[in-house]
Amino acid sequence: MNIPSKILQNAVDQIASLPGIGKKTALRLALSLLKRNEDEISVFSNAILNLKHEIKQCKQCYNLSDHEVCSICENPHRNKQLICVVEDIRDVMAIESTGQFKGHYHVLGGIISPMDGIGPNDLKITELLSRLNNGNVSEIILALSTTMEGDTTAFYLFKKLASHSINLTTIARGVSIGDELEYIDEITLGRSILNRLPYNKTILNNT
Amino acid sequence: MNIPSKILQNAVDQIASLPGIGKKTALRLALSLLKRNEDEISVFSNAILNLKHEIKQCKQCYNLSDHEVCSICENPHRNKQLICVVEDIRDVMAIESTGQFKGHYHVLGGIISPMDGIGPNDLKITELLSRLNNGNVSEIILALSTTMEGDTTAFYLFKKLASHSINLTTIARGVSIGDELEYIDEITLGRSILNRLPYNKTILNNT
Repeated sequence: MNIPSKILQNAVDQIASLPGIGKKTALRLALSLLKRNEDEISVFSNAILNLKHEIKQCKQCYNLSDHEVCSICENPHRNKQLICVVEDIRDVMAIESTGQFKGHYHVLGGIISPMDGIGPNDLKITELLSRLNNGNVSEIILALSTTMEGDTTAFYLFKKLASHSINLTTIARGVSIGDELEYIDEITLGRSILNRLPYNKTILNNT
Repeated sequence: MNIPSKILQNAVDQIASLPGIGKKTALRLALSLLKRNEDEISVFSNAILNLKHEIKQCKQCYNLSDHEVCSICENPHRNKQLICVVEDIRDVMAIESTGQFKGHYHVLGGIISPMDGIGPNDLKITELLSRLNNGNVSEIILALSTTMEGDTTAFYLFKKLASHSINLTTIARGVSIGDELEYIDEITLGRSILNRLPYNKTILNNT
């Protein structure tokens, strides 16, 4: 692309450095920003600057927060004995939006992935173990992706937690609601048969 | 979405205000920005701030430029007598990247679109007419989209330029290189038959 201005080129390069944004999209976004007035542009760039300057990590669960402790950890109506372990804060948001979980979270900040050079020490695993030692946690729910990396991380945590008398569970895998059986991959369908549930239990869950 | 931090929510809202970026993509981008260090974040937000503070419009062709007059208008090797009229600077870049045009441009800054409240007075049409009065322009090439709005704008310019003794042309419409005839819409194929060219002329163009 033959961008006529170095300043525009610079903005396009910066925007295109974001994941999933190519040069053409970056140019479209930069041109749309150019059409705004100065105030709108400063609001935009300040919102991004503030991200780094003002946002904090909850010192308990490592969720993002505006304060030292996040609103979930601070909420007295939530069950402290139940900790759901997730990869990143997007998973917290996804689970929160279901409205089905009323415990606390622990955000690992990633999953074990030797290919990307991420080992157990890069994750908040020590912090999880010290949470277990400090409080009376009764159950840990692993809500990690069913990828090779997710399974590795889950197995690592299972080994680490073996010495603790804690109920370790994992979220249910199976056929998605609304899926037609013929289009589901064999592994998912196979597991959903192996892990079948009493019918009266699913009726209770749906109502 | 249940975003746990107002600062993050604010950044997501700002990013999602860009065209074609939804809330989920905005969150992904904001989180990827969060992973950068402070210097990288300031470089990013400065690149966007500079867009408005430092970028200029070329006072001759209204292309974007870092200086008063853009590099195309300043280039002494380009033909001043030939002006290509385009909707916005992305069209300039697209034509420049073909390497087939060595004249000057005139960026209208949009096309006539009553639905969006854009009339002829919102475009740089008066400026185009005064360029014609000042210099000795021999040909104007209309390179506008073949939409209702593009055709309206082209017809408006045709009427405005009728009194000038200027050669008014439009870029060729027809079958794209590599297209298979059976998949082309009737109007394009019909026009490409009506506007057929002597075969020896296309050989010259291709070599």
